[in-house]
Amino acid sequence: MSEKVKVAIVGSTGYGGVELIRLLASHPTAEVTSVISSSSAGAPIAEGFPHLSEIRTDLLDDVDPVVIKSKADVVFLATPAGVAAKLAPSLMDAGLKVIDLSGDFRLKSRDSYTEWYKKEAAEQQFIDKAVFGLAEVYGASVKNAEFISNPGCYPTATLLGLVPAVAAGFIDPSTIIIDAKSGVSGAGRGANLGTHYSELNENFKAYKINKHQHIPEIEQVLSDVAGRPVVTTFTTHLVPMTRGIMSTMYATVQGEHTAADFIGLYRQYYEGRKFVRIRPEGTVPSTKEVWGSNYCDIGFAVDERTGRVTIVSVIDNLVKGAAGQAIQNLNLMMGWDETLGLQFVPAYP
Amino acid sequence: MSEKVKVAIVGSTGYGGVELIRLLASHPTAEVTSVISSSSAGAPIAEGFPHLSEIRTDLLDDVDPVVIKSKADVVFLATPAGVAAKLAPSLMDAGLKVIDLSGDFRLKSRDSYTEWYKKEAAEQQFIDKAVFGLAEVYGASVKNAEFISNPGCYPTATLLGLVPAVAAGFIDPSTIIIDAKSGVSGAGRGANLGTHYSELNENFKAYKINKHQHIPEIEQVLSDVAGRPVVTTFTTHLVPMTRGIMSTMYATVQGEHTAADFIGLYRQYYEGRKFVRIRPEGTVPSTKEVWGSNYCDIGFAVDERTGRVTIVSVIDNLVKGAAGQAIQNLNLMMGWDETLGLQFVPAYP
Amino acid sequence: MSEKVKVAIVGSTGYGGVELIRLLASHPTAEVTSVISSSSAGAPIAEGFPHLSEIRTDLLDDVDPVVIKSKADVVFLATPAGVAAKLAPSLMDAGLKVIDLSGDFRLKSRDSYTEWYKKEAAEQQFIDKAVFGLAEVYGASVKNAEFISNPGCYPTATLLGLVPAVAAGFIDPSTIIIDAKSGVSGAGRGANLGTHYSELNENFKAYKINKHQHIPEIEQVLSDVAGRPVVTTFTTHLVPMTRGIMSTMYATVQGEHTAADFIGLYRQYYEGRKFVRIRPEGTVPSTKEVWGSNYCDIGFAVDERTGRVTIVSVIDNLVKGAAGQAIQNLNLMMGWDETLGLQFVPAYP
Amino acid sequence: MSEKVKVAIVGSTGYGGVELIRLLASHPTAEVTSVISSSSAGAPIAEGFPHLSEIRTDLLDDVDPVVIKSKADVVFLATPAGVAAKLAPSLMDAGLKVIDLSGDFRLKSRDSYTEWYKKEAAEQQFIDKAVFGLAEVYGASVKNAEFISNPGCYPTATLLGLVPAVAAGFIDPSTIIIDAKSGVSGAGRGANLGTHYSELNENFKAYKINKHQHIPEIEQVLSDVAGRPVVTTFTTHLVPMTRGIMSTMYATVQGEHTAADFIGLYRQYYEGRKFVRIRPEGTVPSTKEVWGSNYCDIGFAVDERTGRVTIVSVIDNLVKGAAGQAIQNLNLMMGWDETLGLQFVPAYP
Repeated sequence: MSEKVKVAIVGSTGYGGVELIRLLASHPTAEVTSVISSSSAGAPIAEGFPHLSEIRTDLLDDVDPVVIKSKADVVFLATPAGVAAKLAPSLMDAGLKVIDLSGDFRLKSRDSYTEWYKKEAAEQQFIDKAVFGLAEVYGASVKNAEFISNPGCYPTATLLGLVPAVAAGFIDPSTIIIDAKSGVSGAGRGANLGTHYSELNENFKAYKINKHQHIPEIEQVLSDVAGRPVVTTFTTHLVPMTRGIMSTMYATVQGEHTAADFIGLYRQYYEGRKFVRIRPEGTVPSTKEVWGSNYCDIGFAVDERTGRVTIVSVIDNLVKGAAGQAIQNLNLMMGWDETLGLQFVPAYP
Repeated sequence: MSEKVKVAIVGSTGYGGVELIRLLASHPTAEVTSVISSSSAGAPIAEGFPHLSEIRTDLLDDVDPVVIKSKADVVFLATPAGVAAKLAPSLMDAGLKVIDLSGDFRLKSRDSYTEWYKKEAAEQQFIDKAVFGLAEVYGASVKNAEFISNPGCYPTATLLGLVPAVAAGFIDPSTIIIDAKSGVSGAGRGANLGTHYSELNENFKAYKINKHQHIPEIEQVLSDVAGRPVVTTFTTHLVPMTRGIMSTMYATVQGEHTAADFIGLYRQYYEGRKFVRIRPEGTVPSTKEVWGSNYCDIGFAVDERTGRVTIVSVIDNLVKGAAGQAIQNLNLMMGWDETLGLQFVPAYP
Repeated sequence: MSEKVKVAIVGSTGYGGVELIRLLASHPTAEVTSVISSSSAGAPIAEGFPHLSEIRTDLLDDVDPVVIKSKADVVFLATPAGVAAKLAPSLMDAGLKVIDLSGDFRLKSRDSYTEWYKKEAAEQQFIDKAVFGLAEVYGASVKNAEFISNPGCYPTATLLGLVPAVAAGFIDPSTIIIDAKSGVSGAGRGANLGTHYSELNENFKAYKINKHQHIPEIEQVLSDVAGRPVVTTFTTHLVPMTRGIMSTMYATVQGEHTAADFIGLYRQYYEGRKFVRIRPEGTVPSTKEVWGSNYCDIGFAVDERTGRVTIVSVIDNLVKGAAGQAIQNLNLMMGWDETLGLQFVPAYP
Repeated sequence: MSEKVKVAIVGSTGYGGVELIRLLASHPTAEVTSVISSSSAGAPIAEGFPHLSEIRTDLLDDVDPVVIKSKADVVFLATPAGVAAKLAPSLMDAGLKVIDLSGDFRLKSRDSYTEWYKKEAAEQQFIDKAVFGLAEVYGASVKNAEFISNPGCYPTATLLGLVPAVAAGFIDPSTIIIDAKSGVSGAGRGANLGTHYSELNENFKAYKINKHQHIPEIEQVLSDVAGRPVVTTFTTHLVPMTRGIMSTMYATVQGEHTAADFIGLYRQYYEGRKFVRIRPEGTVPSTKEVWGSNYCDIGFAVDERTGRVTIVSVIDNLVKGAAGQAIQNLNLMMGWDETLGLQFVPAYP
């Protein structure tokens, strides 16, 4: 076999990083040659993640663009907000292709970033270079890109569920309401009262109402697709489970469209895209049906009484919402089939 | 102490019945004198519910209005849909006060019942006698009532969260969207694939979209309060937990009202009603904060960008959503303080 | 009604403290007059525990023996290991009765404390004063005591399951193996990777094998009961649930004893003690059957093939394993019925 | 690529069958050509398992040895106890290789089968033909076998944790006590009160004490390895999680052996066997660290105070405890590397 493309992962001790390691372990044309963590450099990665025992026996590297370039061709950044903004430019300058899983390069407006993230934005020239890696919508731009900004977990489930309907004018964008729910792994591996087992088990809670930093990301894409500014109501909830996101979305139907019409529209829009599965009429997906996989499953119900459509979209937040989608983008960047190394069957039950 | 009021429970082997037993065990002026189950009559109740060992050592009685009347003054019906419709009349004829926890007497229209429940409706004369036991809204009618129809779990959380705003005209009723989530105990103790642990654990699912039998119950009350027909969008989801309901509700604000205005309005509406707690601005409740108690906690967020209010209302579905509210209604029927025997502090964590 | 006994709780922002508040809220002859937390003094307790909204509206007090004495007659210490060792003496000096829920006064040997807790032990004279509050075994000493050391959660479940058999010589103490399992709330409210939801959910893990600080506590009592030194094998595991402990215990039967013999022995030993329930032959309890209550339920199986008995003992770690047992001890100290304010029916499901 | 080996799965609508489908979907040299279910024949498999949407679009076949032979070379039986006993002979007669995941051919003694399974045993001649597929112990027999009896889930975790120590005389076999815990998927997909979500969530329970049908299977192998009859104490518990088994095992150490000695012994015994990972001293594995993978991870603690060793062994019950081990056996039967198609990294978290 020809040589594999070498991949480095910055932020290997977070859930996004460790999921990249899991998925890339069975990738046929890419291999992870460096796992990087500034906080744990020098330690064996399997020490903090015993599930990797005898699978990865290497030590964590420190963050150094020159060293990374000597070991890898492509680098994934699975770092907290604010880190990639500073790190990505030097990695690109070193000649690396970069796929950033954080929110640092998703918003085209620096002001919007500062408003929602409460941090200083990246430099505009690098923001401009970043391609928003929602492959099923912006696939053409992703091909041949050198720098990808990987979408957020909530925006992935939400936008894949809304874009075809907005693009086709099937729904009134001003009426969109998004009620989103996520498993706890979306909050990362940081330990605080908000991720404490006893506080979350047997509990269901709403958080960051009208204040979640994924709101401007969703609105940016919907506005782009609609051709005019779209604002939405977006609420996030925490579900007592580890993985999975569901966006339940509501909008007023424009014109006369049945659930079957929506299904037809979406099947056409996503034709040839293996990772979006449109469910048959009368059924909607649950999160477990995509657990551990790169699928986004979508279902519809139209209510004649109210004139509204309800759209249910589910993903595994760590796969299609993070690491899996990032690998999908790697595949497209490299000119490979987008499903390479990602054809996992969901783990059920 | 003067003699306690005697209470019988039909359906003592379901979750609603067994929760009535738990709560009434510490009621100061009522006592359970007969636990009844047609399917398990003759067996010790603690056999199927070992948590009741040495607490209740009696055998389950069969359903017989004359025998019940000889043992009790009031009877709770915690039976599946369709049973109370046939049973309640004979119990009332026998001179018993009746509190029905099922949906059989909630809808004033027999056609509506048949449409949503797919069963034959109760006789109109008994439907007409039934007082809808949402005490914080219809408290005056509950006092001195002989026959109470206890509200459904979803309607309780939803209506307590919406009624004051609809009554005051703070929101446009035609824009109401209700995204509701429930723990699994709401599905009852029946064993099927839909209640199988491995199917629900680490899973989040939507069900009965636009088809849930609680929709007409919610709309009946909202229409009554609004003074004109209200239709709503209502979606139910199953959360991997046992107890708890959250209704996340959306509506367009009419006029200029801030979250503080909503808080003020609701505090005024529910003044003196101990079981509704309105959260301070900037916070919303989670389900665990009412676990095991009769509280309904409500919080608000108003988004100036969209002109919409988000209302979060939580209850324990087995307490305020079923057995607790039924006892609250008993208290009111008997002329007692509505909080008697119900002042449980939520179990946290 | 005559005046209630006034109670203060030090450590009110931990799970033990907040459970004391929950249980004491319905105690007929005691009332909580001061909730104390050195770390959060001055803040409303309901701010950190919204489930207490409108139930407790007072502010957290700071730790000051003189002030506590001015407000209370009895003080509960629900503090981390090492705190009570220093604090309890000054509280006793101030004339308060003290019930310590920590491990600081459980071990009679200061060396043993230092070896297992890795901290400096309390003064010997105060250790000597402390009565070990396992009421079903040492009830006579608890009555009239001024200073109680409340047993640990694991020792409570374990000792109630072993003491009668050891005392009667039904089992060989040298063969005892204890396989214990606990819900996560036993680890307290501190946030770290060991209490992170995503690390514990859908996970079962063993920890502190042969090193748990409850080992010497268990052995101290078993040795006392056996009249000779007993060492045991004791393993602790973490279960993905919030509350509940099960100790599954193994020992070689001495003489010919059937499960029925064990049941008879235990029923006799615990006669009149309401909080221990011995299950009928052929059944063993599960943790949910005591959830939220002060019960300890015990069941037996004897295997003729191996000559061993298997004893299963369950408690709610926050009630019988902590706050509930502490209140039971308060009741006995005050000369009241030990069940006062503790007759909760377990919450099921 | 050369043609793949064709595989049929009987019992495709149970958890074992559907896990075989998941794992075989990425097998490089085998492919599933027929999914079979007598109860659902004719229906699309994705109808009952929507996670397979667009992955498997075929219909379920009925059970017919001749038809199976026309479609496949090897057949997996993932059927309830009692079915394979009758079905396997006809499949072998039809010329198929058979791997049975049920308990029907594990016990060499028909009397023992009848005693523990309460069913009629298979014919002795077929029992004699069956090779017990615990590859790390009986690997030589598995190679070239035509008929494999795949070990039970509990025996797999337990035996891999005990065999080397028993074989080397490190422990006294008469002292072995096995405290085993399993996720709920081990109980299968049948819906009953014992698998009801609300009964199991936030609950930990013991079951079938001294009566589990895996006891004779464990003892048969231990007796074989020890060269003399071994009886054990074996207790099973249900953990509120879907996947994972932990066996915590206790035995008296024979001679002077430290934890390091055990580690050395096991590493030597399992040298070259990729699916057994021995943990370094001072650490033991948790179930999540093997979730979704074919690994069995084992750790040790030796207590000088008691002279006992504690051995902790974990597997994913549906993978190494069922479908994964079955595929490992397929690989060995076919003369392939035993890891083919099984090198999944555990899904963490």
